Amino acid sequence: MASKRLTASEMRAWRAYAETTGHLHAALEADLTPHGFSLGDYEVLVILSEATDGALRMCDLSEKLGLSPSGLTRRLDGLVKLGYVLRSQCSSDRRVMFASITPTGLEALESAVTDHVLSVRRHLIGQLTPEQIVSLGDIFISVGTALGRPPGTAP
Amino acid sequence: MASKRLTASEMRAWRAYAETTGHLHAALEADLTPHGFSLGDYEVLVILSEATDGALRMCDLSEKLGLSPSGLTRRLDGLVKLGYVLRSQCSSDRRVMFASITPTGLEALESAVTDHVLSVRRHLIGQLTPEQIVSLGDIFISVGTALGRPPGTAP
Repeated sequence: MASKRLTASEMRAWRAYAETTGHLHAALEADLTPHGFSLGDYEVLVILSEATDGALRMCDLSEKLGLSPSGLTRRLDGLVKLGYVLRSQCSSDRRVMFASITPTGLEALESAVTDHVLSVRRHLIGQLTPEQIVSLGDIFISVGTALGRPPGTAP
Repeated sequence: MASKRLTASEMRAWRAYAETTGHLHAALEADLTPHGFSLGDYEVLVILSEATDGALRMCDLSEKLGLSPSGLTRRLDGLVKLGYVLRSQCSSDRRVMFASITPTGLEALESAVTDHVLSVRRHLIGQLTPEQIVSLGDIFISVGTALGRPPGTAP
């Protein structure tokens, strides 16, 4: 039976996660600042760079990011202004909009990747034992799967 | 030596965490919607409710939330409009601003707490084994501590 209260161990886990995840996000984002974009921008560029021809339908991109259409528009505005992302209509169906990463966007992403990986290692991965790294993967694969969002495991 | 690439196990852990944490946040927030506030609002009300006399100096509150002064102002605006939080000047030093939770805010928080705990249990805690719960706590205590933000473990 689901208890209405958390046990001490559950509370410890929940508080540690809830209090730390925002600080971790802020630290990873601060390390990206010299590259001129946010962690959300970086995520968009990675997803587009991994898509066929560097392009995705807007509806698929918003689904992948877990954003509403208006949230996606706001997220893309800055990247479009920077010339990193291009919005375009589908040639065969003008109701369908695409977002694609530009060569400039790809360059900006590539110049940020190494720093970002070092940042993830410094703030997160490097703080954990090999067993904890496996456990972190197991935990969030379980949680994501229960949310109907099983995380991809491909590199 | 810090590698510039993540191993398969490290990538699995990072991707699972990075892809899932936003969906988890969205699910917890969706469960709070009937109570009329966001997860960020909820966090502010919890922090203020645990402070002496339900009040904190703005600078201490922004520190606890990891928000800039302008970010804190935006965060509080909705809660002030709802009558859940009161902004006031310190009587002895008018340069110091306080935020305090109102009796209405306390009532709103209390009516949300049970649902929120059930939501945390359903989406996160209930998906994990007792060992994973301990591991989740250990992991984010290590990460938070390395960030200079050791999470509180008191209930």
